[in-house]
Amino acid sequence: MTQTAEFQDGAAYSGGVFMPVAEAKISVLDWGFTRSDAVYDVVHVKDGRFFRLDDHLARFERSMARRRIAIPESREDVKEILVRCVQLAGLTDSYVAMVASRGRPQVKGSRKPADCANHLVAYAIPWIDVIPAEVQERGATLMVSDHPRVADDAVDPTVKNYQWSDLTSGLFDAVDEGFDTAVLCDARGMVTEGPGFNIFAVIGGGLVTPEHGCLHGITRRSVIDICAKQGIACRTGDLPRTDLESADEVFLCTTAGGIMPIARIGNRKIEAGAPGPVTRRVMDAYQAMHEDPAYVTFIDSPTRFAAAE
Amino acid sequence: MTQTAEFQDGAAYSGGVFMPVAEAKISVLDWGFTRSDAVYDVVHVKDGRFFRLDDHLARFERSMARRRIAIPESREDVKEILVRCVQLAGLTDSYVAMVASRGRPQVKGSRKPADCANHLVAYAIPWIDVIPAEVQERGATLMVSDHPRVADDAVDPTVKNYQWSDLTSGLFDAVDEGFDTAVLCDARGMVTEGPGFNIFAVIGGGLVTPEHGCLHGITRRSVIDICAKQGIACRTGDLPRTDLESADEVFLCTTAGGIMPIARIGNRKIEAGAPGPVTRRVMDAYQAMHEDPAYVTFIDSPTRFAAAE
Ligand SMILES: Cc1ncc(COP(=O)(O)O)c(C=O)c1O
Ligand SMILES: Cc1ncc(COP(=O)(O)O)c(C=O)c1O
Repeated sequence: MTQTAEFQDGAAYSGGVFMPVAEAKISVLDWGFTRSDAVYDVVHVKDGRFFRLDDHLARFERSMARRRIAIPESREDVKEILVRCVQLAGLTDSYVAMVASRGRPQVKGSRKPADCANHLVAYAIPWIDVIPAEVQERGATLMVSDHPRVADDAVDPTVKNYQWSDLTSGLFDAVDEGFDTAVLCDARGMVTEGPGFNIFAVIGGGLVTPEHGCLHGITRRSVIDICAKQGIACRTGDLPRTDLESADEVFLCTTAGGIMPIARIGNRKIEAGAPGPVTRRVMDAYQAMHEDPAYVTFIDSPTRFAAAE
Repeated sequence: MTQTAEFQDGAAYSGGVFMPVAEAKISVLDWGFTRSDAVYDVVHVKDGRFFRLDDHLARFERSMARRRIAIPESREDVKEILVRCVQLAGLTDSYVAMVASRGRPQVKGSRKPADCANHLVAYAIPWIDVIPAEVQERGATLMVSDHPRVADDAVDPTVKNYQWSDLTSGLFDAVDEGFDTAVLCDARGMVTEGPGFNIFAVIGGGLVTPEHGCLHGITRRSVIDICAKQGIACRTGDLPRTDLESADEVFLCTTAGGIMPIARIGNRKIEAGAPGPVTRRVMDAYQAMHEDPAYVTFIDSPTRFAAAE
């Protein structure tokens, strides 16, 4: 794959044109910014292949529908735009984002969201891990934050969104206290998710992951799929904070980072190691899924946008 | 005041330079966008004078401190930048915004908010009303939304922020049902605020405004000040939804719109008219405050940035 210096930090699409990612900007008057009125999705490319691209596109469409955002581009357009961004950036491993923003009112002075011209921004940048490589090596340390997660009925967490203030507060607290990251609980003390990932606890050989208060992550879904295939018990539902704190193994999961074993939760070291045996099995299976044609989309196919450079 | 065509839609400051507002953009990789990790404030200019500028600057600083955002510019710098934006735009009536954004990590690949380079964006655009003039004339119609406000302990509403998803949901519902706007309640059924405004109810000749679940608006503070001066009873605290629904008079208040009388709340017409007698008194006093030297800052003073054009 060729890559020009221009696109070395990544390639983007905005307003119908492709450009170096550094030029991809939105107006400070865009409601996507001034009201955080935007939805997004992130898919990854590994070894020249998108992973579960159609699942990410489907979730992106669902997020848009839920927030009543409609972009001019069709699903097929978005797919080709993402492929083209990765091609332009010349990346074989990439973090690829699609963002649908409310935009600005087309009726002067209107304060109605429905009067806005919604628009798509997409970009492909070099692969980034949510948890740095050296932390993954030793296993991450996790704080169970006292900062509560926003309630589902106020902001639907299954609509992938940028309203991270509660997650950011948890992250600040965690880093202050020397932890790598944090997980938040809801008002009932049930575990939800953290800044950029879902969480699984291994308890008595089986897996538990929260159902409410969190994004239904595609990586989470991959783990659930793996459990079904391998006959590992897996329950989605309430995970009380105390159950997490005393779990045999814990791991985080996200598109940008995969399966991330936890070595210490609060002040307790995970005895089973990081990764422990169950986490290791899931990690291996998750890696193997990246070879399964059912889940991958090759990026070397020509696109309608190939001439748009 | 002179104004060049270049600046007719407004003037902005970003990255140390002044520019037409259309050029004021932030990177789609800025955490101010991708995590809505930004705070802001809005002050207005009427007849060539800022209103309560120092109060807005103080609140802006408090918001930044609470969210651990620190910009290079001092309070005095910000003040001069805002003045300069209004001057460049040649506006005598203006909506003036200051935004502090998290920025992007200076350490490659870092996911820690503390590693980011925080930055200021400011702009002055022609005055806009939250509620259009013709609606103010007849009084606005208000829906009490069933969509719950985000809880204070999850996202502090006294830190002026862009995380409007719950307010936007309420607004969509209101417009769907033919109302001008909406007010949201908290989990206990207490009234909070709406998309861009605080709310007051007139009950038995006295005023009530929520204390929790809402921004402590500067216009709200002006109304409280007016009540103290004029001997109108005014209570800040719980306002049950049912009390609002049966109130004698209701008005909204915000920098971008002033005091906005409500003509109908849900299906009930406000008998006292819009504005009713108490609302009218507050409106007149609020207008008079704009002549009081204690509250105004003239924009025709030269600034250090005058040569920066
Ligand atoms: C808040 C949050 N939860 C969970 C996830 C994991 O979702 P996925 O596996 O689809 O990447 C993400 C991903 O960015 C996230 O932002
Ligand atoms: C959510 C919210 N509440 C209240 C207000 C009113 O505050 P102020 O009177 O300071 O403009 C605003 C102003 O934009 C707001 O956004």
